[in-house]
Amino acid sequence: MGLCMIVLSADKLRQLGEKYLTAAGAMKEEAELVSDFLVRANLAGHDSHGIIRILRYTNNLLEKRIKPGARLEVVRETPSSVLLNGNWGFGQVVGIKAMGIAIEKAERNTIGVSSVFNCNHVGRLADYTLMAAEKNMIGLAFVNASKMVVPFGGMERMLGTNPISFAAPSAEGRPFVFDMATSVCAEGKVWVRLQSKQQLPEGWILDKEGKPSINPSDLYSGGAILPFGGYAAYKGYGLSLMTEILAGIMSGTGCEYNSEFKGGNGVFFEAINISSFIDITEFRKQMETIVKAMRNSKKAPGSNDILVPGDPEERMEKKRLAEGIPLADITWTEFKILADKLQIDMQEITE
Amino acid sequence: MGLCMIVLSADKLRQLGEKYLTAAGAMKEEAELVSDFLVRANLAGHDSHGIIRILRYTNNLLEKRIKPGARLEVVRETPSSVLLNGNWGFGQVVGIKAMGIAIEKAERNTIGVSSVFNCNHVGRLADYTLMAAEKNMIGLAFVNASKMVVPFGGMERMLGTNPISFAAPSAEGRPFVFDMATSVCAEGKVWVRLQSKQQLPEGWILDKEGKPSINPSDLYSGGAILPFGGYAAYKGYGLSLMTEILAGIMSGTGCEYNSEFKGGNGVFFEAINISSFIDITEFRKQMETIVKAMRNSKKAPGSNDILVPGDPEERMEKKRLAEGIPLADITWTEFKILADKLQIDMQEITE
Repeated sequence: MGLCMIVLSADKLRQLGEKYLTAAGAMKEEAELVSDFLVRANLAGHDSHGIIRILRYTNNLLEKRIKPGARLEVVRETPSSVLLNGNWGFGQVVGIKAMGIAIEKAERNTIGVSSVFNCNHVGRLADYTLMAAEKNMIGLAFVNASKMVVPFGGMERMLGTNPISFAAPSAEGRPFVFDMATSVCAEGKVWVRLQSKQQLPEGWILDKEGKPSINPSDLYSGGAILPFGGYAAYKGYGLSLMTEILAGIMSGTGCEYNSEFKGGNGVFFEAINISSFIDITEFRKQMETIVKAMRNSKKAPGSNDILVPGDPEERMEKKRLAEGIPLADITWTEFKILADKLQIDMQEITE
Repeated sequence: MGLCMIVLSADKLRQLGEKYLTAAGAMKEEAELVSDFLVRANLAGHDSHGIIRILRYTNNLLEKRIKPGARLEVVRETPSSVLLNGNWGFGQVVGIKAMGIAIEKAERNTIGVSSVFNCNHVGRLADYTLMAAEKNMIGLAFVNASKMVVPFGGMERMLGTNPISFAAPSAEGRPFVFDMATSVCAEGKVWVRLQSKQQLPEGWILDKEGKPSINPSDLYSGGAILPFGGYAAYKGYGLSLMTEILAGIMSGTGCEYNSEFKGGNGVFFEAINISSFIDITEFRKQMETIVKAMRNSKKAPGSNDILVPGDPEERMEKKRLAEGIPLADITWTEFKILADKLQIDMQEITE
């Protein structure tokens, strides 16, 4: 974070989010749910998916791109799958329902898949795969989005940052959860660095001429993000295409390089009932073993720690619950400008 | 490839494979099927999964680790899933049957998953996911194996190279197929370079002290392979853990860091019936659009070509069908030594 910032508690941020969303037309329950999702992302340290999104969501509400109270519509259904029209409700509201259906189907039929089109930004995928893990299932999520990422060897935005998430129950206090963009970074991570006036690490983006850049503003003036993988970035590119096909093409959302793209997030959620393969107690025991084995294995020279997915988030949550969540000065200014527009009294929140 | 090598046609290599495998006790149909799979990997340019494996498979047969004619056993079953005991048959024979069952289940029930334990090396995963693509389905495959790869920040072998494959039908001459190790490279690619006396690219392996090395022999004296991802190798590590959980833990195979590891490949195959989500003609049309869009997008400075997964393999296959398949001198010497042991007449093959 840059030097100029404001720090607010998770509760204050939740209130802030609810205020903005309801002022822009969201229903109370939606505003609560969405704000809670965003603040959980902040607590986990993923500010890219945190309360900063309120700035976009509020505009989306005002532009009628998010439709409050929208109803989910079943388009195709089998005992183990469903294709849903999200009717442009909040991505989080649609996402929870979609994963809920996948879990119900998996309860009865081992595997459940839900695929969604006409769906707004669903936020952090871990929130959905964790729903499955909490029901003794494997959760898988693939989501495509607007184009932002180059193909391997290319310089033109063609693919979304196309994240993948995986979660499984564990024997420890919390489930095992993994959530990654198939690009080097999520777009939001560049946005957050732009707002906090930080440079990017090398190897994240190309500028509009296709040259490597560490300036976050280059992304927003015709640049693009690279697929992840370093030497083997063709693998990140392959995973991105896989996600585009599973989440974009299968759902009928399409992909943004194509004029038929419906916009928003194409969603592919899957729940797998573990006990059709292995008893859940044995599975949990094995999960504990794998996690401990990684943590206790020999560290490479110069390495402090061997973590498992979810560890950095858990540490950050402890810290931020205690110390609060920082917001960059520019972000805060944007919130204040928007407060005037929506006639929100900021005093109540920051006191 | 090194300077010293022998070049043989695909047909000659198939005959060679069959001869070795039957001499070591394989049944005729198994030997044909396995040799064909291996030669197809050579044709695709993946010598790591090619005929070089005959050296290991033959030893596995002699040591009774591969059991000719083994019968697959159903351990748990639901309408959309099956857990199979491979009873240590040839990995390829078991793999084909397992994906076949997943496809049958997906035909009736949209999604089919097969999970296998007691299974030998299944070879290249693309061979199985392509089976699904040829039936108008999405094919997914996850496989775990002996430990060879360090966790992110670690120096000790803890995870398999744990490949993932994805295939889908396309409108073009061939399906879309993607197949990657979640490590920087497959172990076999280091083995092939060792045999052809080549150095490794930087960033592939650590030596036994945890220091980066470009000497392939360091892998075989206590070294380990890195997870893929470059700057973001924690993502390759996460995908490797996901594969270990799906393919290793779910199947009951276990993982090699654990004393309960059964050995071989743990398998998780999935087939998804596309038409439960989108009409297959529309899907194929979209696949053609995505592939063309990538190829025709703007190249980065210094880049010759934008490919899609499967392109390099298709090019190599044309070349090798015309020019033959090269084998390193050391590999050929090992084949000759083994021929003496098995009393195989090499003359017939090389003429």
